[in-house]
Amino acid sequence: MNMDIIKPSILAGFMELLPKEQEIFNDIVDKITAVYKNNGCMAIDTPIIEKAEVLLAKNGGETEKQVYSFQKGKNNLALRFDLTVPFARYVAQYYNELTFPFRRYQLGKVYRGERNQKGRYREFYQCDVDVIGKDKLSINNDAWVISLADKAFKEIGLLDYQFQVSNRKVLKGILIEQEIENVTEIMILIDKYDKIDKKSFEDQITNIIGQEKSKYLNNILDIQGSNEEILAGLTKLQIKNEYFLEGINELRQVKAMLEHLDVASERFRINLKIIRGLDYYTGTVFETILIGNESYGSICSGGRYDNLAGSYTENLLPGVGISIGITRLFFVLKEIGFIGNYRIKNKLDYIIIPIGETLDYCMEVTKYLEKKGFGVTVYFEDNPLKKKMNYANKLGVEKVILIGEDERLNNEIKIKDMMSGDERKIEYRLL
Amino acid sequence: MNMDIIKPSILAGFMELLPKEQEIFNDIVDKITAVYKNNGCMAIDTPIIEKAEVLLAKNGGETEKQVYSFQKGKNNLALRFDLTVPFARYVAQYYNELTFPFRRYQLGKVYRGERNQKGRYREFYQCDVDVIGKDKLSINNDAWVISLADKAFKEIGLLDYQFQVSNRKVLKGILIEQEIENVTEIMILIDKYDKIDKKSFEDQITNIIGQEKSKYLNNILDIQGSNEEILAGLTKLQIKNEYFLEGINELRQVKAMLEHLDVASERFRINLKIIRGLDYYTGTVFETILIGNESYGSICSGGRYDNLAGSYTENLLPGVGISIGITRLFFVLKEIGFIGNYRIKNKLDYIIIPIGETLDYCMEVTKYLEKKGFGVTVYFEDNPLKKKMNYANKLGVEKVILIGEDERLNNEIKIKDMMSGDERKIEYRLL
Repeated sequence: MNMDIIKPSILAGFMELLPKEQEIFNDIVDKITAVYKNNGCMAIDTPIIEKAEVLLAKNGGETEKQVYSFQKGKNNLALRFDLTVPFARYVAQYYNELTFPFRRYQLGKVYRGERNQKGRYREFYQCDVDVIGKDKLSINNDAWVISLADKAFKEIGLLDYQFQVSNRKVLKGILIEQEIENVTEIMILIDKYDKIDKKSFEDQITNIIGQEKSKYLNNILDIQGSNEEILAGLTKLQIKNEYFLEGINELRQVKAMLEHLDVASERFRINLKIIRGLDYYTGTVFETILIGNESYGSICSGGRYDNLAGSYTENLLPGVGISIGITRLFFVLKEIGFIGNYRIKNKLDYIIIPIGETLDYCMEVTKYLEKKGFGVTVYFEDNPLKKKMNYANKLGVEKVILIGEDERLNNEIKIKDMMSGDERKIEYRLL
Repeated sequence: MNMDIIKPSILAGFMELLPKEQEIFNDIVDKITAVYKNNGCMAIDTPIIEKAEVLLAKNGGETEKQVYSFQKGKNNLALRFDLTVPFARYVAQYYNELTFPFRRYQLGKVYRGERNQKGRYREFYQCDVDVIGKDKLSINNDAWVISLADKAFKEIGLLDYQFQVSNRKVLKGILIEQEIENVTEIMILIDKYDKIDKKSFEDQITNIIGQEKSKYLNNILDIQGSNEEILAGLTKLQIKNEYFLEGINELRQVKAMLEHLDVASERFRINLKIIRGLDYYTGTVFETILIGNESYGSICSGGRYDNLAGSYTENLLPGVGISIGITRLFFVLKEIGFIGNYRIKNKLDYIIIPIGETLDYCMEVTKYLEKKGFGVTVYFEDNPLKKKMNYANKLGVEKVILIGEDERLNNEIKIKDMMSGDERKIEYRLL
């Protein structure tokens, strides 16, 4: 082997697909973004590289440790680790030129130097929708963004998903009412609920707040049933704390609005154990599980925040957003067999194969078919017929048009159906 | 002002657009990529970060100096500076799993630490098409990739462009026949032809090869006329060098094929001054000028190369490609006023504005309109009517549906045409 040759490879933790899978990936992305566009979300695009001081303005947080940062000249640069921080910067920067409520979607790659493990990527696509208000924003938007995700999942043909919805204020009200001071500790524990067993979860809660309060809290977290039953169970607690009452009221409104928005009632479930990390969210929070495949975690998450861009502006910008980590979603959908069964219509209806010197006539047929709206292409290479047919076969084109001297002389074409193997000769203008 | 607030800003040399312009940018991208897809090109996507040793395998070259590179852990990383090098790596890496000729397109951001100047970006989108053969590839593909760009420009409504096409072999043959040894120097000069005045160009050529040969060469470079006339003028030179003859033959084939592919004859012009840098291309080369705006340079360039991936594999992979620098193209189209006149159909046909407590009925109307295939959204915020109408106006939605108690009681809606100001009441099921 030539010593100058470098083995072609990519970095660990980066996803790269072969064309057939890439086509499915792109089809999923197209369908999701089409839903966002058709529902009036505006697209924005922000740089992948930003000033480190801007991107890391709100310091702290788990993701920050994973940021790719470097110097170029005098500048400290960083690669974006999500689409929310650049969006906050964008809204603050162009505040006077935007129309509020600003409904935006954004699709793009983000970077996190995560520990290398299966299904975790260091470069991955996120696709976010956020609605940002000026000073205030209707609670209906919380349901609306969830309904967009619902529409998007329907578009790609996903069936077994469920939105798990909570409102931070409910739990906050309960903890305040119970005079529990270790709010943060409790929240962190509940956030990890899925990752530890029930017994050890209860033990740890008891360690912090004692047996009585632990039992009270665990009873609340365990309320089962329909959304209506869970809400009734919570109301029965007779808690008077204003956060609690506001949270319950918001949950009720989100539930009612989801129904108005045609999100089937089995598609969302109130679940007080949903926390979504510690900072950031203030009201509605939600995750999305794949029923029967819960262990893969959430495939779409989001929530309500009081103020998007406090690091960059004094303008109050409340909002609600959702994010789909599409690279991770694709990985999960592949694992559960969904990608293997995903069908895409071939863009090419015909491939035309010239036999002998018939290219001019082949191009005439091509032009005719293109004008009729067919997807069509010509095989240009000078190869044995077998190789030409093999090419058509590998491309998955269903109908091959063969054009030799005979066909040209008679203004005909020979069409071979690649599924049945049938061949027929017709005048091309009859297609 | 709060001292903790960081001024929101992005790095110099990065493009960021407001939503209205972003919509146009995305529409242009969608139209270009749709042409590629519908003509049977497969999409691929490669990481933006690669191993530096892989990305910079073929060292040297102007762009390499501009590469963003950095360390993360033990790894030397670099951001891709074009889509061709990652594509070469991709084809070499997955050689056994690809179907050749492999027609691929790729859209993505690339990075170059260029000197900061107007219209030059450090992060920009490229959109490339390449056709790669196994060992050999028909010359017809050279015309085919140009025809795709032609179709793409037509799709976005661009009119005044022209492909300037040459073949490196022609010039090479002439220089060899004239026994000119300073081939590289001459090529570099011709490559810069547009950037220096004619007199100084001729003087510099004369300095290198003497008056007689300079005159001979300049006469050739100056041949004017139709493509047929230029080819006739070249043929008349009676040059017997095999490169020359092969080059002329290929030019003739590309010209004939472009005609077959419906590229209008005024859309391409043979121009021997097109070089496209020194390494890399070996046959067909082309650029695309905007007629009347030539000073902006080429908006789409490409050509034929003998071997795509020599740095990564011993397999011979000849190919031909085109690249559109979309960020730069957008800049140029904005400069010449094209973007200002670009019209996009609003995705939203209707915006529904509830007046009073009519949200449930508004959602009923929304569902009906969505099922009919209309783009529709509801304004959720509790604001004065004037502010609601102002929002619809800013979004550029042509028809606003107003729904108050009256409308709900009568199963009606009030439609306001935002252009004419006309209002009418109708049953919503009549839409």
